[in-house]
Parts: sequence; structure tokens; C-alpha cells
Amino acid sequence: MKSDLHKVLHPIAGRPMLLHLAASVAALDPARTVVVTGAGRDQVEAAVSPLGIATALQAEQLGTGHAVAQAEAALAGFDGDVLILYGDVPLVSSQTMRAMLDRLNAEDAPVAVVLGFRPTDAGAYGRIIAEDGVIAKMVEFKDATPAERAVDLCNSGLMAVRSADLFALLARVGNDNAAGEYYLPDIVMLAAADGRRSAVIETGATEVAGVNSRGELAGVEAAWQQQRRAQAMADGATLIAPETVWFAHDTVIGRDVVIEPNVVFGPGVTVGDGALLHAFSHIEGALIGAKAEVGPFARLRPGAVMGEKSKIGNFVEIKKAVLGAGAKASHLTYLGDAEVGAGANIGAGTITCNYDGFFKYKTIIGEGAFIGSNSALVAPVTIGAGAIVGAGSVITADVEADALALVRPQQVSKPGWAKRFRDAMTAKKAGK
Amino acid sequence: MKSDLHKVLHPIAGRPMLLHLAASVAALDPARTVVVTGAGRDQVEAAVSPLGIATALQAEQLGTGHAVAQAEAALAGFDGDVLILYGDVPLVSSQTMRAMLDRLNAEDAPVAVVLGFRPTDAGAYGRIIAEDGVIAKMVEFKDATPAERAVDLCNSGLMAVRSADLFALLARVGNDNAAGEYYLPDIVMLAAADGRRSAVIETGATEVAGVNSRGELAGVEAAWQQQRRAQAMADGATLIAPETVWFAHDTVIGRDVVIEPNVVFGPGVTVGDGALLHAFSHIEGALIGAKAEVGPFARLRPGAVMGEKSKIGNFVEIKKAVLGAGAKASHLTYLGDAEVGAGANIGAGTITCNYDGFFKYKTIIGEGAFIGSNSALVAPVTIGAGAIVGAGSVITADVEADALALVRPQQVSKPGWAKRFRDAMTAKKAGK
Amino acid sequence: MKSDLHKVLHPIAGRPMLLHLAASVAALDPARTVVVTGAGRDQVEAAVSPLGIATALQAEQLGTGHAVAQAEAALAGFDGDVLILYGDVPLVSSQTMRAMLDRLNAEDAPVAVVLGFRPTDAGAYGRIIAEDGVIAKMVEFKDATPAERAVDLCNSGLMAVRSADLFALLARVGNDNAAGEYYLPDIVMLAAADGRRSAVIETGATEVAGVNSRGELAGVEAAWQQQRRAQAMADGATLIAPETVWFAHDTVIGRDVVIEPNVVFGPGVTVGDGALLHAFSHIEGALIGAKAEVGPFARLRPGAVMGEKSKIGNFVEIKKAVLGAGAKASHLTYLGDAEVGAGANIGAGTITCNYDGFFKYKTIIGEGAFIGSNSALVAPVTIGAGAIVGAGSVITADVEADALALVRPQQVSKPGWAKRFRDAMTAKKAGK
Repeated sequence: MKSDLHKVLHPIAGRPMLLHLAASVAALDPARTVVVTGAGRDQVEAAVSPLGIATALQAEQLGTGHAVAQAEAALAGFDGDVLILYGDVPLVSSQTMRAMLDRLNAEDAPVAVVLGFRPTDAGAYGRIIAEDGVIAKMVEFKDATPAERAVDLCNSGLMAVRSADLFALLARVGNDNAAGEYYLPDIVMLAAADGRRSAVIETGATEVAGVNSRGELAGVEAAWQQQRRAQAMADGATLIAPETVWFAHDTVIGRDVVIEPNVVFGPGVTVGDGALLHAFSHIEGALIGAKAEVGPFARLRPGAVMGEKSKIGNFVEIKKAVLGAGAKASHLTYLGDAEVGAGANIGAGTITCNYDGFFKYKTIIGEGAFIGSNSALVAPVTIGAGAIVGAGSVITADVEADALALVRPQQVSKPGWAKRFRDAMTAKKAGK
Repeated sequence: MKSDLHKVLHPIAGRPMLLHLAASVAALDPARTVVVTGAGRDQVEAAVSPLGIATALQAEQLGTGHAVAQAEAALAGFDGDVLILYGDVPLVSSQTMRAMLDRLNAEDAPVAVVLGFRPTDAGAYGRIIAEDGVIAKMVEFKDATPAERAVDLCNSGLMAVRSADLFALLARVGNDNAAGEYYLPDIVMLAAADGRRSAVIETGATEVAGVNSRGELAGVEAAWQQQRRAQAMADGATLIAPETVWFAHDTVIGRDVVIEPNVVFGPGVTVGDGALLHAFSHIEGALIGAKAEVGPFARLRPGAVMGEKSKIGNFVEIKKAVLGAGAKASHLTYLGDAEVGAGANIGAGTITCNYDGFFKYKTIIGEGAFIGSNSALVAPVTIGAGAIVGAGSVITADVEADALALVRPQQVSKPGWAKRFRDAMTAKKAGK
Repeated sequence: MKSDLHKVLHPIAGRPMLLHLAASVAALDPARTVVVTGAGRDQVEAAVSPLGIATALQAEQLGTGHAVAQAEAALAGFDGDVLILYGDVPLVSSQTMRAMLDRLNAEDAPVAVVLGFRPTDAGAYGRIIAEDGVIAKMVEFKDATPAERAVDLCNSGLMAVRSADLFALLARVGNDNAAGEYYLPDIVMLAAADGRRSAVIETGATEVAGVNSRGELAGVEAAWQQQRRAQAMADGATLIAPETVWFAHDTVIGRDVVIEPNVVFGPGVTVGDGALLHAFSHIEGALIGAKAEVGPFARLRPGAVMGEKSKIGNFVEIKKAVLGAGAKASHLTYLGDAEVGAGANIGAGTITCNYDGFFKYKTIIGEGAFIGSNSALVAPVTIGAGAIVGAGSVITADVEADALALVRPQQVSKPGWAKRFRDAMTAKKAGK
């Protein structure tokens, strides 16, 4: 990845890929979750420990079998089923995980369940030779015969094994191979030598796509987005150009929402029924009410709450700002740390001056207030309900309800000045 | 569609799909046009009645043959050719419609002309068994033999029939099938039993793509856009990234126009020769003059008229605003209900205050005027030709030609104040 | 192309296609470079003469052989290897050119080296019949036998020939064909008749894609972008949606840079390590420091220099502006012709008034200064280090270090005015 960030912490849909996997695992309500890491353990630990997930260190990189073995201490006293996943294979669903565990506990009780897939190009993947879902052989590509290479069922690496079997078998895995590594799949063949069978279940190649480069990261992101867009449309939203809408992992979209081309969602967004999101909108941490209208060229930052039928228009940014029903800020405005009452109209070019370089202060605008264009509201300040602020005002004191507040020095005119200026400047420019 | 909006009113390229079809039909100058609707008739009627199109109600959904039969009353007294189309198959061209009618009136006078197509995956479409364009059999997929299923010529459902034949045959169609429905294609087989032949003509699968979900809606939109982009390039416009330009149904683009990535057109836009549309522009209801320059990050709303070589720059919105040749508003500006003379220069941050919460007022800026940055022009107001407005002014009274107008209270300085403030705030923050 | 601009001057990645080729040629350090042009020679000459490239006129369009022959005078006295390229085949790499010359000078010394390729659809391309890289026959598609047409090795038209051979052979090429043209490939067959062999080397079809329409121009642009995006990711940048990032020919991207969807680069941009480019950013002629943050909705124009960890936020435009480390302009701002000291904070809605209609002037903002929102800084003006400018000020005079400057007329309140206004307007509106 050529990155200072640990590979498994690179985000997909705004969430580190490892946490996608953690969320899918959490849906199974596991007794314990352990992440085995090598270099960059601190970064990984910081990401997963808030979720109650333990980490185990693999100090040396001695192969997948060796990696799994490092989890033994953390699983001491646990005798249930173990699901082995990979932090860089982030899109595996809870359903597939559940299917692996169900297969492990089926009547024929295989010692291990391997997740297989059939890629378009099987390339150098390890092959699974199986009949009726029972594994006859697992073979690395380089060791495979031409007939084995012709098999298109590949090993994803994911596996489910009972803990007692897992560590007992791992203890018998050797490293007598070219790389000198301990390979996890060897446990299947060791069990077979004991007369115990393993099973394979299959999934689509997209679900087990791995990330080993930024190109593959983009590929997995694209696959995630494509799936999410299709879901949004199936749920009753119109995406005019679906390929140009980027959802975050937790975006919630209502019915009859229309999303124009080029809308980007960061985490934490809920969009109510019938809302209209115009092109070129950037939305993060926001609650958008029913039939509200956003953009084009709008930016909603965390803490933005838009009431029903409210409107945030072009070149408007809102942050920690709550708009009542029908309130509007249509053009060239910044609302930060603000409360805007229902039906209030914020004129073009309005700025809430919420920061003095040290602290943030709040602006409160009452219901039905009308803020004239190009005004600056110096917080903390309250504009009463129904009040009007004259265009171009700098408001530093509270405005009472229904009052007009303005700061308007006399307009001065100097007849002919512009012509004289133009003549002088034209001469100067010519003299250059 | 999971929508409160009738399916056939969902838009493609900014126009309800039914109206795409209506426009293509209108090009044939038909004697009568009738839309048969079931639920949601009011919505449909409201959309088509302004076009002089009648509607007929299909109260119960008893099949395509039944639907067409509902138009009989509305076609009373009409004895010409009837073209049967589907509101959710919106991209059928006038040329194809014309070809169907021409075939109906060819020397061999078929009783019906069916529009066939050959999709990549014929799936469960009804098949047309034909030889030399004459239909031997039309068969639903579920009733088809393996040999029939192997035929890839599919039935689009579209048909041309003389009105006398149509209703006579429809009266004989029965509903003795699993669904208990009256199927339109049955008229072909009924006519055949009378010894009368029907013909098939073919078109491409894209043209007869139907919309039954938001995903298919997006697919038809994409097909429409792709075709339109290719046309724009063929006509002499450069689209740097064609897949990121979204046209409306009526966009007109001149020669040697350059369109950068990510430009969205709403309805009603004409772009003159040699205009340059920068990335991230959103343009609707606008007339853009020759060699004018727009964006990036520009929004043109209905009523925007840009003169030759005029310029609307970044974070600028214009609405009902006419700019003379060479006029410029380059940054962070809102011009609404305005006239701007040729060569005028509107400084960054200028706002026309055109709305008082009740009425809209007009701003007139003369030729060659220069509006200083961050000014507010409170309409109704006129800035004379060649006048200059000082930066930061709130202009509430007319400015005569060639005058300088400004509103500039004295600048006050409080030496050392900032340092004292910083020290106090730093202490306060530390004390927290 | 339907264009007033010469075909070879249409840009790819922000650079005329001919200059892409010129840059690749220049990497070979050629003794001479000659461009043969017909109509539009003036445009071409203006583009290439600054690079020391000669032009030769092909007054009549008499075929590719004739075109090359026009370069003879410009190559008088030159007896080295001649590489024949096409201005509308712009993506040929230096490596491929070098490989052609190396092959020309290999032990078997072929008289000519032809660049071949195998397209997905060989269509009507001329075919190369070769064995072990030695050409047996070159044949135009229309003259080819079915067996020859079945060969998928096609002639790109590019060739390497020693100058002495080239012009001697060209002198023998006739125009006894349907078009009456002199064909360059004929020299291969003429040499063969003399018993001298020519060689073919191959490259991928993308590299020799030609541009004969705006559609093909977009196709070559897309191919270039795809390659460049992959390179950026391989070099350690994250592109969340690579297909929505448009690079210019000379963009330089550091390691651990994150680029969100929809970022457009114009020429002359360097992005430092760890920088974060948010969605919807338009960046041209800019130097972005390490860990700096840009956008969303930011526009950087030529001369923008962002220090380490500085920030340009939404709806902000900067041009010829240098920001010190950690300086911020987060919202709705225009900085033109400015110097901003380290750690300075530019409030929302700040405008540098840098232009008086005739000249541009400079704004200097000291380290740690704080510019209140909605201020206008009328250049030339200097704000001292640590100074504070009050919100809504129009600053026309220098502000000393650590001072507070403000322009703040008294706020006036008219109690009940808004209610009376509303009542009056409501009545007026009702009266309409």
C-alpha cells in the first residue's frame, strides 16, 4: 500500500475495512473476537479495543497457520467454533459467516469448513478439489497438476473450525516448504490423514475480494458502492446517475428521495422521505428532514439538522446547525453553531461569526425571522422571532422580536469620480 | 418503483418518460393520441392534457389486450392506423414508429406489425417465430418449446394495427390462461387463424428497454445520456469526460464548445459556439452566448442570459439575470433579477438583495460599471453606466453614471487590543 | 473534428496531443524534429516552434509517403535514423520509440521497422504478414485475400527508417492506386523487391490509438487517465473513486495522499505527502504542502501555494496566494495576490479586493492574524502579525501588529418595524 496507515485500517465507504468485518462478526454475537496483528499493532489495537476486541501479536511473519496459532492464548478456555477471517478481505457478510458455522455443525460434522469461490480468472489461487461439498484435496497452485489447475473452485482462505480441533491440528502443521511458512490450509489435509473430512461452501468472488494495493482498495470500494446503490434504488430512491453517488457505510435513505448526479455522503447521514438532493452536494453527519431540499453545491457538516421542507441551497455550508421546518438558506451562507426557527429566511451571503479564535459561540434565529443579504451575525447573538435584519449589517447585539435591526451608514456619492479615475488609470496603464 | 409518483412520470433527462414518448409520437402528427391509465390517472392526466392528449381509464388490470380495448371509445370514428406503445418503454424513436406504420401499409398489407428485438439475454421474453419478416407464431416463454426458446427474436409488445382490425380482433381475445388476462399478442394468432398474416420489424434492444424499477430507470437514463453525449461530440463539442456530462432532453450545444468533467444540464439550456464550460457547473434554463465562460462551480438558474464573451465564475449563482457582452462576475456572487451592461465587472462577494420576503425587485447595472467586492445592492436600484461602487458598500439609492458611490465608515484601530485579547482568552482556555 | 482548432492541438490531459508526442520524442534527444503540416500550419507552428521543432508544409494532401517526403529539405545533411510518427496518435511512449530504433539497429539491420498492433477488432486496418518479426507482406485491407484478412497483426503506420533509405525509397513510390496517393508503407515492398527485409515490432492497441473525432479524443483521454490513476495508486495515493479523478499531464502526487471523488487537476500541480483533497476540488497551478487539506468545493488557481497543514475549505478560491504553515481559509473566501502568514485564520466571507479595474494589488496578512468574517481587505494593504480584524470590516488602511481594526457603525433597532412591514406587505400582496 506504500502507506503509513496499517492496511486493514484503510477505509471502505468511510469506515476502516477491519471495522466492516468487525461489524459483520458482531452481528453473530461471538463469545470472543481476536485480531492477530504484526507490525502496526498499535494502530490496529487503537481501532478495535473500543469495540472490546482483543489483539494478539504475531511478532514474526511465519505464515497463516502461525498467525492463527497466536490467537490461542487469547482463546484459552474457549471451546466453541472459531471463524477465521482476514482483515484485508472486508466484505464477507454475516450471512456467509453464519452459513460456514451452520455447515460446521451439520449432521456430518466436518472438521473444517472452507469458504470457496469461483473467480473469472482463477489465476494462481490455491484450488479446492471437492465432490458434493466434501474436500478431497486442497492444493497450492504451484503444486497443482494440470488437471487440478483446470478446477475453478478456489480457496478464499476463510475457514471455520472447532477450537479444540484447530489448535491441535495447527500444532502438527510443519513448515517444510519453499517459503518455510506454516500454512493454515494444511490442517485440512492433516485431518484427512486422520480420516476426518472437511467441507467447502461457496460464495461469489466479489464477497471475498482481498485488498493488497490501493488499486484493489478502490475495486472493493467500487463493489461496495455498486451494491449499496442498487439497494437504495430497490428501496425506492431515484439515483439519476447511480455510479456518481457515494454512500457511507451507515447512510440511511428514505422513499421517493431523488439524488441527482454527484452526491457524496460521509458517515452519519439520514435522509427523510421525499427529500431532493441536488447535484454536487457533500453531506456528512446530517439529518435531512422529509421533503427538504439540498444543493446544488451544498455542504452539510456534522450536526446539521434540517427540518421538514427546509432548504439549503448553493454554496451554503452548515455545521452544528438546526433548521426548523421550512427554513431556508439559499445562497452563499455559512451557518455554524446555530438554531434557525421554522420559516426563517437567511439571505444570500449571511455569515454566522461563531469563532473568535478561541471559543465557539451560538447564534439563535427566531421563527419567521428574515436576515438580509451579506449580513454578519456575531455570536453569541439572538435574533428574535419575526425580526428583520437589514442587508449588509454586522449584528453584534441581540435583536428583539419583530424589530428591524440595521447598521447602515450613509451612502455617499462623488459625481464624476469614476470617470476621472478611469481616465487617470488609463493614462497610467498606457504610460507603462 | 416504491413511489408516490406514477411510474410513467418518472423523468429521463429531466422530462417525464411518458412525455418523451409523447414527443416522439407528436413528430408523426397523429390524428389522436390516447393514454390508457389505471391507478394514478389524475397524475397522468395532469401531465398529458396540456398536450391535447386524451386519457382512457383501465379500471381493472386485466391484461394488455384489455388495456388497449379501453381506448376504443376515445378512438370512436377514427379509422386510421393505430400505434400501440407503452409509457414505460420511453425511448422508441419517431423513425421506428414511422417504420412500423410504413410496414403496415406495404404492398402485402399485414394485419399487424410487431416490433421485435434481439436482446443479449433473451431470458423470459415472449418469442417471435418468423420467416422473412412474416410471423409464423408468437409464443410466451413459458409455453415455448426448447426449439422456440432457442430463437432470440423477442416481442417488445409494440404493435401497429389498423383501427378496424384492432378492435374487432380484440373483441375475440379470451382470457383462458393462467393469469386470466386478455393478451394483446393474441390478435396476431387470431388473425393468422383467419389466414391473415402479420409482420415483424426489428430494432435494437436499447430502444425498447422498459422501466419497471428505479434500477431500470437509471439504466434507460444512462442509455439516453450515452447517445446524447456521442451526438454532442459528433456535432463538434469536446467533452473531456463524456460519461460525467448530463444533458437534459432539450439541451442545445454549439460548435467548438468545450465541456469539462462534471457538468449537469437542467432543461432549457442553449450553449453558443466556442463557449467554455468548466468542471462542476450546474446549468438550467440558461442561454449562454458565444465564447462565454462558465464555472467551475457556477450555477445558472432559469432566466440566466450570458452575452458573448461574458463570464460567470466560481461560486456564482445567477437567476433571471441578463449579462451584456464581456460582463464578468467571477467569484462568490449572487445576481438575481438583474440586468448587467456590457463590460461591467461585478466584484467578488457581490449580492443583489432582490427579495424583501414578499416581492422581488430588480437591479440594473450599467455598461462598464465596476462593483467593488463584498457589496450589497438593495433592489430596486440602478447603478449608472461607468459608475464605481466602493468595496463593502450597501447600496440603497441609485448611483448616477460615472459616479463613485460608497458607504464607508471610518476604520478604527485599537493598538495592542488583539494581544491583550489573546492573552486573556489563552488564560481563560487554560483555566477550563 | 468540426473544429477551428487544428486536430493535433486538441488537448489530452490539458496538453495538446502533438505536444504529448513531442515530449516523448524529446526524451530520445533527437538531432532534429520536423512536423509536416497541411492546412492550419500557422497554429501548429505557433505550438511547436517554441520547442525548437521545425515545420514543413505539405501543400497538397497526396498521401502519407508524400507527407514524409516534405520533410526531406528540413532533414538535409542529416544521415541518422528517422522515426515517423503521427500527430493524431499521441500516446506512443518513448520506450516504444526507442524499441523501434533499437530494432532498426539490430544485427540483421532491417531497412525499416514497422510498429504493429493487434486490435480487438482488426476491421479495415492494413495487415502485416510476418514471420518471426520479419515482414513478408504489407497489404491494405481492401486488397487483402480472406487469408490475409484473417491475420490480426495490423499496421499502426509508425515506422523507423534510416534517412538515406527513406528518401531514396520514397522517390520510387508511385501513386498508381484508386486514391492516386503516395503510400508510405510501399517503401517496405519496394525494399523487399531489392531483397532487403523489414521488421515489425508490436505494441498494445491503446498506445497507437488514433484521434479522428471528438469521440476518439475522449477515448484517448480516458485511456490516458486510467493509466495515470493506476500509477497514482501504485505510488501510494488513495483514490476513493479513481474513475472520477482527472489528472493533468504533469500532476505530481505524494505518498499517503487521499483524493476523494471528483477532483479535477489542471496543469502545474504538486501535492505533498499526506495531503487530503476532498471531493469537488478544482486545482490548477498549485503547490499543496504536506498534510494540507483542500475542499470540498475548493478552487486553487495558478500561483496558489499552501504551506504544510494549511487548509483551504469550501467555496474558497485562491490565486497567486501563498499560505504559511497551518494557515486556514475555511469558507466562502477569495484570496488573490496575497501572502498569508503561518497560523493565520481567515474568517468566512473574506474577500481580498485585489483589482481596481486596471491594476492588481497585494494583500499581506501577518502570522497568526485573525480576519473576522465578511471582511473586505482593500489592497494594497498589510495586516500585521497577530492583528485582529473585526467582522464585517472594510479595511483600507494598514493594520499594525497585534492591533484590533474594525469599521463598525452603531447597530440601530426599530422596535415593531418588522411587524408593521409584514402587515403592510401582506396587505399589498393580498390586494394584488
